[in-house]
Amino acid sequence: MKGESPQLKVENTPVCRNAEIDSFSPLNLVSRMSQPEEKFDRLETGIPGLDSMLDGGFSEGRVVLVLGEPGSGKTILCSQYLYHGAVRKNEKTIFIGMNEQKSRFVQEMSGLGMDFVNLEKSGTFAYIDATEIRRIPEEAKVGRIPVGGRELSLVNLMDMIQEAIEKYSPKRIVVDSISDLVFRYPKLEERRPIILDLVESLQSTKATCLMTSELLSTGEGRMIQPEEYLAEGVVIMRTLPKGIRSIQILKMRGSKVDTHARPYVINDQGLQVYVTEEIY
Amino acid sequence: MKGESPQLKVENTPVCRNAEIDSFSPLNLVSRMSQPEEKFDRLETGIPGLDSMLDGGFSEGRVVLVLGEPGSGKTILCSQYLYHGAVRKNEKTIFIGMNEQKSRFVQEMSGLGMDFVNLEKSGTFAYIDATEIRRIPEEAKVGRIPVGGRELSLVNLMDMIQEAIEKYSPKRIVVDSISDLVFRYPKLEERRPIILDLVESLQSTKATCLMTSELLSTGEGRMIQPEEYLAEGVVIMRTLPKGIRSIQILKMRGSKVDTHARPYVINDQGLQVYVTEEIY
Amino acid sequence: MKGESPQLKVENTPVCRNAEIDSFSPLNLVSRMSQPEEKFDRLETGIPGLDSMLDGGFSEGRVVLVLGEPGSGKTILCSQYLYHGAVRKNEKTIFIGMNEQKSRFVQEMSGLGMDFVNLEKSGTFAYIDATEIRRIPEEAKVGRIPVGGRELSLVNLMDMIQEAIEKYSPKRIVVDSISDLVFRYPKLEERRPIILDLVESLQSTKATCLMTSELLSTGEGRMIQPEEYLAEGVVIMRTLPKGIRSIQILKMRGSKVDTHARPYVINDQGLQVYVTEEIY
Amino acid sequence: MKGESPQLKVENTPVCRNAEIDSFSPLNLVSRMSQPEEKFDRLETGIPGLDSMLDGGFSEGRVVLVLGEPGSGKTILCSQYLYHGAVRKNEKTIFIGMNEQKSRFVQEMSGLGMDFVNLEKSGTFAYIDATEIRRIPEEAKVGRIPVGGRELSLVNLMDMIQEAIEKYSPKRIVVDSISDLVFRYPKLEERRPIILDLVESLQSTKATCLMTSELLSTGEGRMIQPEEYLAEGVVIMRTLPKGIRSIQILKMRGSKVDTHARPYVINDQGLQVYVTEEIY
Amino acid sequence: MKGESPQLKVENTPVCRNAEIDSFSPLNLVSRMSQPEEKFDRLETGIPGLDSMLDGGFSEGRVVLVLGEPGSGKTILCSQYLYHGAVRKNEKTIFIGMNEQKSRFVQEMSGLGMDFVNLEKSGTFAYIDATEIRRIPEEAKVGRIPVGGRELSLVNLMDMIQEAIEKYSPKRIVVDSISDLVFRYPKLEERRPIILDLVESLQSTKATCLMTSELLSTGEGRMIQPEEYLAEGVVIMRTLPKGIRSIQILKMRGSKVDTHARPYVINDQGLQVYVTEEIY
Amino acid sequence: MKGESPQLKVENTPVCRNAEIDSFSPLNLVSRMSQPEEKFDRLETGIPGLDSMLDGGFSEGRVVLVLGEPGSGKTILCSQYLYHGAVRKNEKTIFIGMNEQKSRFVQEMSGLGMDFVNLEKSGTFAYIDATEIRRIPEEAKVGRIPVGGRELSLVNLMDMIQEAIEKYSPKRIVVDSISDLVFRYPKLEERRPIILDLVESLQSTKATCLMTSELLSTGEGRMIQPEEYLAEGVVIMRTLPKGIRSIQILKMRGSKVDTHARPYVINDQGLQVYVTEEIY
Repeated sequence: MKGESPQLKVENTPVCRNAEIDSFSPLNLVSRMSQPEEKFDRLETGIPGLDSMLDGGFSEGRVVLVLGEPGSGKTILCSQYLYHGAVRKNEKTIFIGMNEQKSRFVQEMSGLGMDFVNLEKSGTFAYIDATEIRRIPEEAKVGRIPVGGRELSLVNLMDMIQEAIEKYSPKRIVVDSISDLVFRYPKLEERRPIILDLVESLQSTKATCLMTSELLSTGEGRMIQPEEYLAEGVVIMRTLPKGIRSIQILKMRGSKVDTHARPYVINDQGLQVYVTEEIY
Repeated sequence: MKGESPQLKVENTPVCRNAEIDSFSPLNLVSRMSQPEEKFDRLETGIPGLDSMLDGGFSEGRVVLVLGEPGSGKTILCSQYLYHGAVRKNEKTIFIGMNEQKSRFVQEMSGLGMDFVNLEKSGTFAYIDATEIRRIPEEAKVGRIPVGGRELSLVNLMDMIQEAIEKYSPKRIVVDSISDLVFRYPKLEERRPIILDLVESLQSTKATCLMTSELLSTGEGRMIQPEEYLAEGVVIMRTLPKGIRSIQILKMRGSKVDTHARPYVINDQGLQVYVTEEIY
Repeated sequence: MKGESPQLKVENTPVCRNAEIDSFSPLNLVSRMSQPEEKFDRLETGIPGLDSMLDGGFSEGRVVLVLGEPGSGKTILCSQYLYHGAVRKNEKTIFIGMNEQKSRFVQEMSGLGMDFVNLEKSGTFAYIDATEIRRIPEEAKVGRIPVGGRELSLVNLMDMIQEAIEKYSPKRIVVDSISDLVFRYPKLEERRPIILDLVESLQSTKATCLMTSELLSTGEGRMIQPEEYLAEGVVIMRTLPKGIRSIQILKMRGSKVDTHARPYVINDQGLQVYVTEEIY
Repeated sequence: MKGESPQLKVENTPVCRNAEIDSFSPLNLVSRMSQPEEKFDRLETGIPGLDSMLDGGFSEGRVVLVLGEPGSGKTILCSQYLYHGAVRKNEKTIFIGMNEQKSRFVQEMSGLGMDFVNLEKSGTFAYIDATEIRRIPEEAKVGRIPVGGRELSLVNLMDMIQEAIEKYSPKRIVVDSISDLVFRYPKLEERRPIILDLVESLQSTKATCLMTSELLSTGEGRMIQPEEYLAEGVVIMRTLPKGIRSIQILKMRGSKVDTHARPYVINDQGLQVYVTEEIY
Repeated sequence: MKGESPQLKVENTPVCRNAEIDSFSPLNLVSRMSQPEEKFDRLETGIPGLDSMLDGGFSEGRVVLVLGEPGSGKTILCSQYLYHGAVRKNEKTIFIGMNEQKSRFVQEMSGLGMDFVNLEKSGTFAYIDATEIRRIPEEAKVGRIPVGGRELSLVNLMDMIQEAIEKYSPKRIVVDSISDLVFRYPKLEERRPIILDLVESLQSTKATCLMTSELLSTGEGRMIQPEEYLAEGVVIMRTLPKGIRSIQILKMRGSKVDTHARPYVINDQGLQVYVTEEIY
Repeated sequence: MKGESPQLKVENTPVCRNAEIDSFSPLNLVSRMSQPEEKFDRLETGIPGLDSMLDGGFSEGRVVLVLGEPGSGKTILCSQYLYHGAVRKNEKTIFIGMNEQKSRFVQEMSGLGMDFVNLEKSGTFAYIDATEIRRIPEEAKVGRIPVGGRELSLVNLMDMIQEAIEKYSPKRIVVDSISDLVFRYPKLEERRPIILDLVESLQSTKATCLMTSELLSTGEGRMIQPEEYLAEGVVIMRTLPKGIRSIQILKMRGSKVDTHARPYVINDQGLQVYVTEEIY
């Protein structure tokens, strides 16, 4: 491990499982795993292509941010992740929905071939309706003590998470999305600790958690959002000007991942990632 | 649905109805539907080309944002959507106009071959003049209680929507536009709940609703506007520097749509989209 | 008008009057009129090339924004529009000048071959000197009631317009420019209703009105200014980095216009637009 | 002057005096004068190439903004303009210097071959040292009335201009620069009337006036500064990334000018513009 | 050393140790050392390729900023730097962790082949858990004196550093990261002295220190962050749009370094830099 | 000097001393001196290549801003400038250090072959440690009068300069850097007079002065900083994305300089500029 200048040694850089590398070029200088990694267990997403990028799936116990543009399929990705765990692995899963009520969620996912009604009956899925949280007024009272509505929102969400954990002991959790909570704190110095609290609250569940968030701007030169630093992993989903959808893993603590931007489509079976295609 | 790396399989990716794909390239990696989708009913727009992009029309019961630059034809698109429903499907339709009075609207659409006067007589169309809402002063009173003018605007608009629903039971609703209401709230943390209230108010009507909004900037790198996240669908209409008009579906919950940017023209029959042409 | 995917049919897309289309390409996908439009009367500008772009002229009774960079010729365009109406059509015309006094205006236009002195004598032209409005101090009094200077400015301008209408019954009105008035309101939520008041005040005259405004920034990615949404038409005039002048019709309610950016020059007969040339 | 679509007619577009046009292309679509213009007298700058761009010189009685990056030679251009008038035309000239004291000015211009000491003796040049104005403290008193320091600055500058006029009756005036005065007003709604007051104060002198100002940013997409709209002419001087200097006339009321960006150098005789060279 | 214009003399520009230069071009005009530098001792990082870029390692006693995007491997780089010192040089090392607790850190680095548990036992490594610092509330009390929570954070961190020094006399220190501390001061004029205090506190330890910080934006045109000026060295780590990782040494006081951007990967042995590859 | 359109006359444009111009192209349209300039004495920097760009050195008595990115070598450039004067010309020189203490400065420059310890003994160099100035708290007292800490900083710095002058009568002065002082004034209208005071204080010394400042952003389109306008010369030092270092003289009052951006390296003899190489 001394300071020798390494040559690009193709033969020492094994490819991802299921991925083909046609030619080796500087563009392929993405980090890949040399050896199967045994330290962290992986939770497959079941999303074709994405597990390859993730070197098998999300690392167990991590809190991962799914950051995307409008319509990029953040909710679908998260739902597939839960559905796969529940159906294929018989894992307990929870969806904490801040954006839409259960009926809309169920209906929409049904259209993508995911039957969450039956999963719920079987006990492997629960939908926590947290849409009320974003309605909590700016000023509220806990007993006789006035509390800012936004602090209350956060406390409520964390309580929901806590209750859900105690009740279900889930292995997979989704929070969709944190944006309403986060945007209540316009100042960066206030926003960071809120996100941090949320991330640590999720970490303490020992489940493998996805939380979604809204991208603030399009284009390549953009402000980095604080949740990208505070989460342990970041998946970014965008629509390029021509209309191609692009998914990229910006960060994944404890994993050796494919950091290339890859095209994906949303069809009637949900997301499908083309891991051997380049985007630019 | 396991984590296999999918190859691009052209033969498994059926084309849109009425659309031709000349050659398969990464640029064609837009999401298309494999199978006719039966879960949501579609409401045809009657706009040539656009229904193809939408996989048949807007999904029933959804609230869709039509976001566009000045002069991009947001109002025309919405009017065609209503007109088509009223004339061809005999559906009840409502236009809630915040930007212009009924007479101007009627005159202009008449020039595009849409006779809303007769529709109104036939009972399939109603124009709700909501232009007064944007004049409500900053300070107002409800009885003896002082109310901020902007809160009053919102309440008024929602009441109008509610009344219209009770009176007409419309199947198609247009709100054109939400910008005057929204821009009264310069802070993001205030603007989000207002838009959310409006979207949910529209959702509760069970009608399929379009609401228009003004794009804040031109160019590819732009701030994403909060209404793009809060609506269930987003259609964006722009004029490219050379003068070509471009329409793109950024988002459509519950639908598999063509996310390519496509050129369109406005002629004396309204909008016409060239779904087999690429823009860039 | 059903959802068929239209092919680009060159033979169904008649050219503008006086315009030649050399070759049909996606770049020519600008909206053009299929049939002579009879619903709105047109007011010719008399500016070579511009009437072609406008499909004959400005639509009667519309309020059009002329938005341009410094030195782009906004005032010249407006003056030609008035002059043409007065000289060729014997229409009554009014120029409400907020930027310069009558003598400077008259002298400058005389250098471009327009003799407004004689027009004035003949009764077809009036110059309303509104330069005092931009001097009204921030604090003023109407009787004993303190009024913000900027509100007073607006009221004064509207009174001037009203008076002019009653006195002259003009068919063509120019307000040059609205920027001093508008920039007194730095907040968007205040600026919008002011512009709206002005636009509606002009609409109520039944005349066909141009109002000029200053572009805030150069370059392709720019903030869209609120007046672009509130006016019924928008003509944008810019100087490209190399020094070529470009005119583009971004918006024209009730008209089918050429939305291409076109080069123009200012020579000793005023503006001249090259409608068959492309800019980029 | 009717709405005919003009063809590009090279033979009808005479070249500038002293300028050669090698080939006619859309890039040459800059506005040029067809006929010698006799309405305004021209004041030659004596700067090689610039008078060509200006169609003979600055129009008499106009107030022109010289806007430039640091080191672009704004002061040199203005000095050459004064020097040429004093030496060749025996005109009276005044330099109102807000940036540097007379001795530094004289020394520097002497290095460029301009002997302002002798001009001063001959009575055709006066240097008004206005550097004290930018030192006036934020709070000051006129008699017992407290006055904002910045208002006082403006009043002082205008008094200086007025005095100079009465004393010298100059034909050419330079104010170098207005930036210290203008930047005291960070808000646009305050800055505009200040600049306007200054411009009108200069207009009232009947002299042909240049005022310099500092460009706020580099690059093509930039905020337009309010003084660009309020002055009657704008000359912009920049240094392109590679180091080439570029001068462009953005605006010149009452003149038909070359709006192309042109390269220039600063050598030991001052500025020299290459009017037949293109920059990009 | 007189003002002669040097020619590019390839033979006088020795290459870095371990680095190959294939061809000499302007792109190779990066600063390289002519002679082995003996004034500062070097601390090898043990990261393949990086020591070459650093001309042997970090200069002893310097405080270096590691600035990077989310997921760029800032923590891994710092850990390898400590691990190499402890294992190969038997140097005492300290990691002051503000982002994650010891257990997470240890687990993650273990997955990259670094066994910090054993190092700790051997006495060459200590982990200072400083995660509590970012939880200190905005208002706190020291005795009866109210103190701003953020001032307290800073004082606490410095005390931790001081204690660690006295206890361990480390040769290598890492602070990961300073962002939570720094972002508590949104105003630049407040942020600078805080960073300065921290840098000087680290300098006073005589150890060679790395501190990490979060990059605020992506893309080439970016705001420079104040810590880049206040640290003695800056290493920047980014993910380019396609997914390639890039490391660049922007600054290294007292060293002659390779300022080229170089690609790197993160595999199961940590970072690996390709010093002979170019990035753009 | 009349308004003739000059042709590019290569034979009339003598090259810089020591510089070769391979081919004449528009890219070479940088201002160069035709004749040796005798009006201002030059102070050689001794930096290979830079004196060529400066046409012999800095003009005597000028205050020049050295503006650069982190790690660009601002301090090294300034030190070489002093060292050359002291060693080769036996001139008295002063370094006013606000960023680092004397020991660090001396050590670092020693590594670049400059022995400031001996110079100090010989009486041709003095280091003024001004690092305390940036620690002066926001609120301070002069006697019983409360003074803002930042005003005090400025007064202190000027006193230091004054004292140094009286004591040493230096011919070359460096202030490194002004940023800590300047960034205490976040508002432009406050920052300008502070910088102005400093510049004039330096001018009054009659020495030739360099002051360094921190560039606020990278990329080509950037905000121009006020010190660029207030200094008499500006040298800008940047690191291009690939890692090439670029130096450019944006401004130099009273000199005809090479305004091209030129590559440079920092090796163990300090900076070396390649004046015959182009950068882009």
